[in-house]
Amino acid sequence: MIYLDNAASTQIHNDVLDSMLPYLKEQYGNPSSIHRYGRLSRKAIEKARKQIASLINADPSEILITSGGTESNNTALRGITTGHSSGQIITSSIEHDAILEPCKKLSQDGFDVFYLPVDKFGMVNLSDLKNNISEKTLIVSIMFGNNEVGTIQPISEIAKICHERGIIFHTDAVQVVGKIPIDVHELGVDLLSISSHKLYGPKGIGALYIKKDISINPMILGGGQEHGLRSGTENVANIVGFGKACDLAKINLSENISHMKKLRDTLVQNVVDQIPQVTVNGHPESHLPNNAHFTFLGVNGEDLIIKLDEYGIAASTGSACSVHTQKASHVLQAMGFSHEQITGSLRLTMGIFNDQKEIEQTVDILKNIVEELRSVSPFKEKYSFSKN
Amino acid sequence: MIYLDNAASTQIHNDVLDSMLPYLKEQYGNPSSIHRYGRLSRKAIEKARKQIASLINADPSEILITSGGTESNNTALRGITTGHSSGQIITSSIEHDAILEPCKKLSQDGFDVFYLPVDKFGMVNLSDLKNNISEKTLIVSIMFGNNEVGTIQPISEIAKICHERGIIFHTDAVQVVGKIPIDVHELGVDLLSISSHKLYGPKGIGALYIKKDISINPMILGGGQEHGLRSGTENVANIVGFGKACDLAKINLSENISHMKKLRDTLVQNVVDQIPQVTVNGHPESHLPNNAHFTFLGVNGEDLIIKLDEYGIAASTGSACSVHTQKASHVLQAMGFSHEQITGSLRLTMGIFNDQKEIEQTVDILKNIVEELRSVSPFKEKYSFSKN
Repeated sequence: MIYLDNAASTQIHNDVLDSMLPYLKEQYGNPSSIHRYGRLSRKAIEKARKQIASLINADPSEILITSGGTESNNTALRGITTGHSSGQIITSSIEHDAILEPCKKLSQDGFDVFYLPVDKFGMVNLSDLKNNISEKTLIVSIMFGNNEVGTIQPISEIAKICHERGIIFHTDAVQVVGKIPIDVHELGVDLLSISSHKLYGPKGIGALYIKKDISINPMILGGGQEHGLRSGTENVANIVGFGKACDLAKINLSENISHMKKLRDTLVQNVVDQIPQVTVNGHPESHLPNNAHFTFLGVNGEDLIIKLDEYGIAASTGSACSVHTQKASHVLQAMGFSHEQITGSLRLTMGIFNDQKEIEQTVDILKNIVEELRSVSPFKEKYSFSKN
Repeated sequence: MIYLDNAASTQIHNDVLDSMLPYLKEQYGNPSSIHRYGRLSRKAIEKARKQIASLINADPSEILITSGGTESNNTALRGITTGHSSGQIITSSIEHDAILEPCKKLSQDGFDVFYLPVDKFGMVNLSDLKNNISEKTLIVSIMFGNNEVGTIQPISEIAKICHERGIIFHTDAVQVVGKIPIDVHELGVDLLSISSHKLYGPKGIGALYIKKDISINPMILGGGQEHGLRSGTENVANIVGFGKACDLAKINLSENISHMKKLRDTLVQNVVDQIPQVTVNGHPESHLPNNAHFTFLGVNGEDLIIKLDEYGIAASTGSACSVHTQKASHVLQAMGFSHEQITGSLRLTMGIFNDQKEIEQTVDILKNIVEELRSVSPFKEKYSFSKN
C-alpha cells in the first residue's frame, strides 16, 4: 500500500511508540496519585509538555493538553466566549468543521459570526478582516494551513491586525505544526491548536497553546487536572507519545520539509506533465510542503479514490471528517470552484515515510485511472480528452 | 511494589495491550477515510463498541465513546441541561468532582442543585430523593459505587423513583463497571458513565451509555463523529483496548469478583485482628468487592501513604484526583466523620493482579507503620494505643 492521506492521519513513528510502551505496561499510575507510580506518570507528562512547548517555542505552562485538535478548537472558541451573552466571532469560510460547527452553535446562542471570504487560492483578504473587526469582536479564528488545499494564511499579519484592536487571535494549526517552523512569539498568536496524530504521534491527544496573559474558561470540569482547565485522568501514554512526536518533529524539521517538498514537486510536476486537463489547486507559493490538491475535469473524485484504493493507494477527496456526509467541499465552494471542479478533485498528502518510488508509482497508476474514468465520463464529449 | 490503588487506575491487561498494538503500528488510518486504512479503523471501533455495550447489556447504538469518565459525566449533565435556562438537578453529596464541579458551574448558570445527604455508611436515603424530586427536576445523577469508601447505592430503586416522575437518571459507574454484574435494562438507568482505565484498559477513553429514547446535546462539535454527539478523530487504539478490556471483564467477571472479595476479606479481617483502634468504613454489605477503607485513629493518612510508599506499597487516602489539593474528603465529611477520623483514613483498593501473599505482606507492613506513627502521634495520650 502507498499511503498518501497524511493530512487525515499519520503512522506513529517507531520511536514514539517505544516511548509510549512503558506507560502502557508497568508505569500505569494515575498522575494524581502521590505514590511512586503516580509520581512517575506526573513526571512523564511534564517532560512531554516541555517537548510540545519547545516545538512552537512556547513556555510549558502555556500548553493545555486536550483529547485532540477538535477539543482544542472547541476549547478556544468556547473558552473565550463563555461568560459573554453576545459579541462577534470572525473566522474564515474555509475552516475545518471543528471550527465551523462550534461557530454555528455560537451563532444559535446569540453570537454574531462573520465568515471571511477567500480568493481562488483559498487566501483570506486582510482588508476584509480590517473592515469587519470591531470592539464587538471577541475572538478571531483563522486556520493556519488548510486541510484540503494546503493554503497557508498570513498568520502574523492577522495577529497584528487583531492585536492593534486588542482582539484575541486563535489559529487552528493542526495541519501545520511539525511541517513548517512555528514560533508563537514571532507569530504573535494568542491561541493555537495542535493535533498529535497529524505529526506521527498517537490519536486522541492534542494541545491548545494559550498565551500567558490569556484567560479561558474550562469546558470539561472535575478533578482539576491541567490547572483546572481540562479535568479527567490524563492519557499518560498518549501524552508521552505526543511529546516524543513533537521532539522528533523539532529535531528533523528541515530534513522533513525538504523531503516532503521534493516528493510534492515530483508528484505535481509529473501529474501536470503526464495527465491532460488537470489543475493544481491552493496557493502556488504559500502552501503546506506535503499537500497536493488536483482537479481532473470529467472525473468523479469519489470514483478516483475508490479506484486508487483498489490499486493500493490511500488518497482522499478532501477532509476525511466530511467524507461520510458526502457533502460538497465548502472549501472549494468558497474558492469559487464549479460543481464539476469540486467533483473532480483529489487530495494527495505526503508524509515522512513516503519515498520517491511510491510517488512515481502513484503517477503511473493515477494516469491510467484518470484515463479509464474519462473514457466512460459523461463529460467525454465536452472536454474531448486526449491522450498525452 | 504492591499496587493497592486500583480505584485510581489499573494496570493494562496484556491481552488489552496486544489488541491495541496493530492500531499503534500499521493500522493507522483515520476511521473517517474511505480507503482501506480508514475502513479497518472504522471496523475496529464498531467491534469495540459492541464489546463495551455487551458488558452492560446495552445496544451498541447506545454507546457514546468519550475521552474518559470525566467527559462522560460532563456530557451527561450538560447534554441534558443545555437548552434549558433553569431547572433542578439532584445529585448526592458524595459524588466525584467530575459531577460536583459541573454541578457547581450549572448552579452558577442559574440551575438549582440539590445535594442528597448520606448516612454514616455513605448511603443516600430514598425518601430524601422522593421528597425533593419535582417537575422542575431535569436530571438526577447519583454515583453507583463510591470511589473512596466503596458504598454501592440502590440504583434500580433510584431509577424507579425517577421514572415514576418522568425524570432522567444518570449514574457515574466508573468504579463499578467490570466489578459487579451490570445490566442497564434491569437497572433502568438512562445514562451511565464508564471509564476504561478503571477496568484494565488504557487511559484517555471512556463511554456514556445513552438509553435509546434519551436525546442529549453534544459538548464537542466538529466533524460529526459518534453520530454528531462527540466530534474529533477517534482514538482508535484506545477504543480497541477499551473494548477488549470490557470483553475480558465480562468473560472473567465472576472469577474476578470472588478473587477480589477473598483478598478484601483477608485484608479487612487481618487489619481488624492485628491493628487496634481501627474502623472499617463504607457500607458493611453494599460495597465494592475491591475496596477497603479504614480509619486509624491518631495517624495522619498522608504520612501513612508516604510510609507505605517507602515500603513499596501504593495506596491512597481517597480520591487520587483531589490529593494534590490537600482538601479534606467531602465524602467522609458528608458521612459525618470528625476531622480526626478523616485525617486518619486510608484506602486500599485491590485488583485482579494482586494476590493473597501481597495482602499478607501489606498487613504486616501496615501494622508496623501504624505502630510507628502512633508512637509519635500527638494523640498518643488521648487514645492510649496499646499493642495487640
